[in-house]
Amino acid sequence: MAIVTIIGAGMIGSALVFPAGENGNQVRLVGTPFDRETVSACRATGRHPKFPRDFPADTHYYQAEEMDAAIPGSDLIIGGISSFGIDWFRDVVLPKIPDEIPVLLATKGLQDTPDGKLLTYLDILQQKLNSIGSRVSLNAMGGPCISHELVAGDHTVAAFCGKDLSVLRKMKAIMETDYYHVLLSLDTVGIETAVALKNAYALGIALTIGLNQRRFGPDSEPRFNSQATVFGQAIREISLLLDYQGGVTPENLSIGVSDLFVTVCAGRTRLAGILLGQGKTIDEVKKELNGLTLESLIIAVRVARVIRIAASKGLLRVEDFPLLMHVDAILSEGKPAELPWEEFSGQMM
Amino acid sequence: MAIVTIIGAGMIGSALVFPAGENGNQVRLVGTPFDRETVSACRATGRHPKFPRDFPADTHYYQAEEMDAAIPGSDLIIGGISSFGIDWFRDVVLPKIPDEIPVLLATKGLQDTPDGKLLTYLDILQQKLNSIGSRVSLNAMGGPCISHELVAGDHTVAAFCGKDLSVLRKMKAIMETDYYHVLLSLDTVGIETAVALKNAYALGIALTIGLNQRRFGPDSEPRFNSQATVFGQAIREISLLLDYQGGVTPENLSIGVSDLFVTVCAGRTRLAGILLGQGKTIDEVKKELNGLTLESLIIAVRVARVIRIAASKGLLRVEDFPLLMHVDAILSEGKPAELPWEEFSGQMM
Repeated sequence: MAIVTIIGAGMIGSALVFPAGENGNQVRLVGTPFDRETVSACRATGRHPKFPRDFPADTHYYQAEEMDAAIPGSDLIIGGISSFGIDWFRDVVLPKIPDEIPVLLATKGLQDTPDGKLLTYLDILQQKLNSIGSRVSLNAMGGPCISHELVAGDHTVAAFCGKDLSVLRKMKAIMETDYYHVLLSLDTVGIETAVALKNAYALGIALTIGLNQRRFGPDSEPRFNSQATVFGQAIREISLLLDYQGGVTPENLSIGVSDLFVTVCAGRTRLAGILLGQGKTIDEVKKELNGLTLESLIIAVRVARVIRIAASKGLLRVEDFPLLMHVDAILSEGKPAELPWEEFSGQMM
Repeated sequence: MAIVTIIGAGMIGSALVFPAGENGNQVRLVGTPFDRETVSACRATGRHPKFPRDFPADTHYYQAEEMDAAIPGSDLIIGGISSFGIDWFRDVVLPKIPDEIPVLLATKGLQDTPDGKLLTYLDILQQKLNSIGSRVSLNAMGGPCISHELVAGDHTVAAFCGKDLSVLRKMKAIMETDYYHVLLSLDTVGIETAVALKNAYALGIALTIGLNQRRFGPDSEPRFNSQATVFGQAIREISLLLDYQGGVTPENLSIGVSDLFVTVCAGRTRLAGILLGQGKTIDEVKKELNGLTLESLIIAVRVARVIRIAASKGLLRVEDFPLLMHVDAILSEGKPAELPWEEFSGQMM
């Protein structure tokens, strides 16, 4: 038995309680300052308000200000915060973690730099560790992980990536169950890049659904040629971005494709894409979705900036990324949803 | 205006009449010996029995034995036959085609050799051309192309691949419409390999749907973590097979992914996978589907043979292909559908 402390009581942090707890571990679920009501509800009922079943018995609940009691003795700390919370995790949580407890980050994203680099969240957290002289082992997870499906026990393979194979093996031993399978990778940049792009591209793919509803009628049967074509275009662009990041491998592609697939099939990014495709403006979509999804879409704006800078240096070509640039223009300039089909097919391979 | 002759009046051959005809060309639709009734019906009604709308006005219909009247004067001959018909196309049709008329093949598949090579259908047709001294230009198409969606005008990007760029450009000019977009590639082996594998892998992915119906109940909500994970595994294996064939590029992957996506989303291979996942035996599935789908699945058996031979030479590792080997074992040995999850996650990347 190990002690797994999960920071963040949102959907993904709370869902990870299930494999962690069902594997025989004690789980400490710690809310962020935004999770106050959720933690109170979990404590009172033994169940997350949005989940259909109780947490495993040996689960314990902590408010953000009780974190200092949750960390000591942990064998693993999982960062289950959203992109919004990454700065809080870096500045407030990381300094509390002793060197011997490894961290596993569930948050997916990239940040751009003024000179056209794409930093992973692990890069950014590592900078903080270096500045405070911490030797905590930083690791990240990728792969398909719809939270309520994880709660239901649907099979998934998560990729745990990090720099230390012995740490990765230890985390796999702690977390792996008969439905939550864990694959290990030493390529942190490759895995994090592959999965960070999913929200931007899933939005682009889901546009086809809304565009077809507008074209063929709101109740028309779903059509997949267009959706599949844009999915393929997404993989083409993701491959080029992985290459720019130094890591296009079958394994990274595999994890990126699976994470993208699941994001296209269900969830709020898909819904945002459908609404935009139906003809709603980005402001109307933001209003309809209460702004909750769209923080994940900032990745499109960041990557578009990097592509332009890299293109100015001759390292990438803007015309190789018509889908990403289209999604950026929708988000940044309110461009209409219609897809640039000629740009998908215009170039020789 | 050009004259486009399509050999094969099945679903895909007949669907391609629409972009060809709507682009202002005359189209000659020629049945195989199995298409006799369909051609008669088309001739009588101006419509394919399974399509919801009429063919373009300048479409003409030919029975197989009338082929000699259809070929002369054609600017392009499209092979729209199924895998079943490829030998007939090679032995009966190819010798009739004059050197100056290019051929564009819609049939997808690979054939294995005793020494562990995977030949594309273009390779096989080229052998025939060489043996009869013909200089016909052979080309192939890949990409998402559900026939009734093509008839409806849903957007798609087709990849036309061949060895002669001027021929490819001519075919694109003839076929491209505002919904049927054409991308060109000189990598015939890469494109044909990427799309040939789709039926084998789509079956493996669709297993998750049936397995979940068995596990969570026949009317349970669809869950995508498992489906996405197997989709990712498929892309990993396809990448390795493309590498074996000498052509893993972002473009080939893109076309392979899009063709796989569409095959997972709809059609008879998907249905076969679901039925197997529900617990039906391969013989029961064959009976239920009247054997019609399963010819496309022979690709799994062929590729599995090649992997074993290549592994014996140290060129591939059988354990890198757990999904393909599982599909082969279902088809060849009647193995149950349960997926080998540990094999998907057991190896280091």
